[in-house]
Amino acid sequence: MKLFRFGEPGKEKPGVIIGEKKYDVSSFGMDFDEDFFGGNGMEELSKFLLNKEVSLPVVGDDVRTGPPVKRPGKIICIGLNFRDHAKETNAPIPAEPIVFFKATTALCGPNDNVIIPKNSVKTDWEVELAVVVGKKASYVKEADAHKHIAGYVLHNDYSEREFQLERGGQWVKGKSCDTFAPLGPFIATPEKAGNVDDLKMWLKVNGQLMQSSSTSQLIFKVPFLIHYLSQFMTLMPGDIISTGTPHGVGLGFKPPIYLKSGDVVELGIDNLGTSTQKAVAYTQPW
Amino acid sequence: MKLFRFGEPGKEKPGVIIGEKKYDVSSFGMDFDEDFFGGNGMEELSKFLLNKEVSLPVVGDDVRTGPPVKRPGKIICIGLNFRDHAKETNAPIPAEPIVFFKATTALCGPNDNVIIPKNSVKTDWEVELAVVVGKKASYVKEADAHKHIAGYVLHNDYSEREFQLERGGQWVKGKSCDTFAPLGPFIATPEKAGNVDDLKMWLKVNGQLMQSSSTSQLIFKVPFLIHYLSQFMTLMPGDIISTGTPHGVGLGFKPPIYLKSGDVVELGIDNLGTSTQKAVAYTQPW
Repeated sequence: MKLFRFGEPGKEKPGVIIGEKKYDVSSFGMDFDEDFFGGNGMEELSKFLLNKEVSLPVVGDDVRTGPPVKRPGKIICIGLNFRDHAKETNAPIPAEPIVFFKATTALCGPNDNVIIPKNSVKTDWEVELAVVVGKKASYVKEADAHKHIAGYVLHNDYSEREFQLERGGQWVKGKSCDTFAPLGPFIATPEKAGNVDDLKMWLKVNGQLMQSSSTSQLIFKVPFLIHYLSQFMTLMPGDIISTGTPHGVGLGFKPPIYLKSGDVVELGIDNLGTSTQKAVAYTQPW
Repeated sequence: MKLFRFGEPGKEKPGVIIGEKKYDVSSFGMDFDEDFFGGNGMEELSKFLLNKEVSLPVVGDDVRTGPPVKRPGKIICIGLNFRDHAKETNAPIPAEPIVFFKATTALCGPNDNVIIPKNSVKTDWEVELAVVVGKKASYVKEADAHKHIAGYVLHNDYSEREFQLERGGQWVKGKSCDTFAPLGPFIATPEKAGNVDDLKMWLKVNGQLMQSSSTSQLIFKVPFLIHYLSQFMTLMPGDIISTGTPHGVGLGFKPPIYLKSGDVVELGIDNLGTSTQKAVAYTQPW
């Protein structure tokens, strides 16, 4: 199954993609949130869809795609989980996963503009494979981790490097700005995601390939990450775990390259679709 | 107004404290969540209460007190915001606020047991003044910060020092365990909290005074913190900002003192009540 959400920001409705077509499943009665993933939402939705797709309203391609999870409890990110990325940022290869949070208010649709924050001069990109938690997880064994996965989704872990690294303390300041977590276009359930240990991932800026790697290069793989994180916190249904980015972020170039207003960022992961964000300068909303 | 929540974990109902008495306001129809704080919940609840308290059900003292906010979007914490605490942890005085997140799954009632996590040997306490955000805040001026405050609340920012400081990377690993954010007993609206720049705060372990300070010693005060945080992320109604802890945490003793099963932690802040947590070792739920 491929789950997506569509409509105006904050008023999104749930949908599913079947073949090439997008269908409105708001008549199912649940949005894709903690209750949906934590209950039997997936199974119930599958039953609901049986022989029904032809009768569901089709969602046009002109309709905005929103983030495919509604108000997740956490966005957990793994830092420096590719050897070549750790090297480009002059960081040692981590002995165990580096964990940080993004504010959930950073979440936006996959093709929404990325807003360069006020006073930002170092806004950077990071294509990442993200996991959506399907079942509450606390002290989970690595062998059982797969039971806690609802699906996989494309994520661009935007980062303001000055806020992250030069403003004192922890990374969260450079990871949490509004629109810094474009998620989607859809959540692919495991059978649709294929072999998540070998998916090509890439990111272009203004048409130029900046990141090109594969999830096969992840130092810590998804089942280990779920096991590991669950030793430190309880993972809730709908929580998002973003597994880290490969070589090729702006910070790694000499001199570094950062986004400016008008730049276009495109990214994709095999089986998880593509997304495009246009960078725009922050402007006062009034 | 003083807001609290009561009942079984996950099934709490909203209540208000008037004088010494606790009243059930579930008949008001809203719980204390993002919608309540972000809408006109406070004003509507005030109107609802006019001349009504005598007719509301009283909540007995034997009923569990829950966290006074339902599913907040973020718990944002400020690190090293007291000079003497920075010194005891061998950290420099920060030039600007150090910001980190706690997982919202760490939230629990003010008098719930604190669970010493599996494999933990360095579970530590931190009495803190926390702020509940009352109105969405993005790029807020310090002079306008007060408009974004719903109220103030007592918080114990429990921290596993090995997870936080010795396991690689960011602090979040040591801040996010279940029960590491006992919040309450109640949210005091600004007029009930008094002069939040001069509230005594204290914490005892097994009756022995470990922390004793005042919010007057905060390096970065509440209005500046709201202004500052809102430069990096959007603050949402119901979000919790915990402003930092003074001298006297376990880590600061020579040798350090950490919690063991059976220890009793009591804490309080003037006008914000007191809370008590008993430390218990993690046990498998099965």
